[in-house]
Amino acid sequence: MMNGITEPQKLRENLLRKIDHKTKPLGALGKLEELALKMGVIQRSLSPTIQSPTLIVFAGDHGVTEEKVSSYPKEVTAQMVYNFLGGGAAINVLAKVNGWELKVVDAGVDHDFPDHAQLIRRKIRLGTRNFAQDPAMTREECEEGLEKGAAIIRDLHDQGVNVIGFGEMGIGNTTAAAAIMASLTDLPLEQCVGRGTGLDDIGLARKQKVIRLALDKHKISTCDEFGALQTFGGYEIAMMCGGMIECAHRGMAVVVDGFIVSTAALVASRMEPEILDACIFAHQSGEMGHEHLLAFMNVQPLLNLGLRLGEGSGAALALPLLKSAVGFLNDMASFESAGVSGKI
Amino acid sequence: MMNGITEPQKLRENLLRKIDHKTKPLGALGKLEELALKMGVIQRSLSPTIQSPTLIVFAGDHGVTEEKVSSYPKEVTAQMVYNFLGGGAAINVLAKVNGWELKVVDAGVDHDFPDHAQLIRRKIRLGTRNFAQDPAMTREECEEGLEKGAAIIRDLHDQGVNVIGFGEMGIGNTTAAAAIMASLTDLPLEQCVGRGTGLDDIGLARKQKVIRLALDKHKISTCDEFGALQTFGGYEIAMMCGGMIECAHRGMAVVVDGFIVSTAALVASRMEPEILDACIFAHQSGEMGHEHLLAFMNVQPLLNLGLRLGEGSGAALALPLLKSAVGFLNDMASFESAGVSGKI
Repeated sequence: MMNGITEPQKLRENLLRKIDHKTKPLGALGKLEELALKMGVIQRSLSPTIQSPTLIVFAGDHGVTEEKVSSYPKEVTAQMVYNFLGGGAAINVLAKVNGWELKVVDAGVDHDFPDHAQLIRRKIRLGTRNFAQDPAMTREECEEGLEKGAAIIRDLHDQGVNVIGFGEMGIGNTTAAAAIMASLTDLPLEQCVGRGTGLDDIGLARKQKVIRLALDKHKISTCDEFGALQTFGGYEIAMMCGGMIECAHRGMAVVVDGFIVSTAALVASRMEPEILDACIFAHQSGEMGHEHLLAFMNVQPLLNLGLRLGEGSGAALALPLLKSAVGFLNDMASFESAGVSGKI
Repeated sequence: MMNGITEPQKLRENLLRKIDHKTKPLGALGKLEELALKMGVIQRSLSPTIQSPTLIVFAGDHGVTEEKVSSYPKEVTAQMVYNFLGGGAAINVLAKVNGWELKVVDAGVDHDFPDHAQLIRRKIRLGTRNFAQDPAMTREECEEGLEKGAAIIRDLHDQGVNVIGFGEMGIGNTTAAAAIMASLTDLPLEQCVGRGTGLDDIGLARKQKVIRLALDKHKISTCDEFGALQTFGGYEIAMMCGGMIECAHRGMAVVVDGFIVSTAALVASRMEPEILDACIFAHQSGEMGHEHLLAFMNVQPLLNLGLRLGEGSGAALALPLLKSAVGFLNDMASFESAGVSGKI
């Protein structure tokens, strides 16, 4: 066993050797082997662990809903936060079944919530501005979002958490995410904009037009990740972005949910490319932009179940895979210890 | 709530209505929704449950290993059974992490095992015959395999189990499975035969040649599923086949692991096509034939993680998805109960 390893290449070699001596053909556990390696590298350990895994749903409202870009009224953001706190949403079930603690962050919902044990109140404003007219956030608000997100992670790390699932809720936030993606990549707008919670063709065309006009109006450089986040983003996206960076600094695994969370990872990885080493992309969602964004970032999702719900639902489902990866790395026998013959 | 529903279409409609009233956009839980529907249909209930899920590793030896078709010596079958009973194999870790009871069946390993709490001793013979020369089993042995597999499931059902994961261990059994697949489908041999535990190009060519000669020698009709099973199969494959049919008769869910288990499902579904309604294909393995076999059977796997281990490893990983599907169906709030607004 090794403690306090600092040389990454040596650690990686030792992890691979440990994996290859398990009682199985070389590579036979496929992506679980990659995941075990990744967890070891994130935690700088040959025996990584999963401690108090916590899934956080970051919630915020979006001024751009004024442009009728969603199938649901914006009041649903607050209603769904109450649903999370009441235990009746999909993420409540999926978090419980798959072994997560669940927290909800009010990053900027257009509603004032009473105190609740699961609610972390970090509201920046009662929803962003409509980016069809003005930047969604001020520079100061965007910085505040990054800082507050980092602070939430610091608190959880101090409590012993070492795996964070990132999820979100915010009517209108596929529009915000698509605008960020289109702004920071060279991908055609049609590949960035999807149907969200279920727009029809007319709704989709309107959503595309709103984003195209906003891109033309604000003229953000593809290299200006802060500008894209401030101009099109939501408070929940800014907090996720700051939170992911803090996770990477602290050796905590980042479990990325779907399209919106992945745009937060895109922005974070532009700010600090190394954060991708801490990111586990849980799934590929059914929302149009996600497949293209994952390919653009050159990352492989673990699951592909056609989910398009958000809330952290895909991230929730990935935790048993992490536990399985860490479990085999720590608890499986080697050929020598089990007395099993090797290859002929 | 409905009890004792017998009309399948009505049940299906009621399940779909229940799914669609949950607090999420229509269809947003993707394959989890299909899985929830399937579990309801299998159990003929609007509120399906998962009771004492049990994963069974059926183990058997194969005479065809005399033809040098595997990278590992055939002694590894018995050694791995001891590894399962000792708790050190991948399936031990994956079963535990993902919530399965684990049982091992000695269907026909070339070794006599002492009693063990997890071992179900149903040995038919000390390994099959070499199908390069003779049929692997006699007609009576093959029938005995089907019956013993069914009896194992009956016992577990009587103990309250309603979900069975099927896994296997047997050096040489990708050769047996590939021969069954090639025999019962019109697919080219190259699509049926893979590298198993890691054959090189020369080994793969030898394996293909052994199977091609055996197919020519025995001349089994593509419609003769019993003949293919008897001639090329293993005792573990016959028992899985009989077990799957019994599961379907008793309203138990069948969680299908990888390539070898899928060939058992192919044979079973030829004997009784309805058994596919009870089958949940857990994953697509990295073994060559599996992708083509799943496509041939027109079924969709839940996971695709590049596993090529067998033992039930992929089936093990699918249980949290089943729990998640049943969980949302039973425990999520409806729009009405949660006070969440519907579509605009």
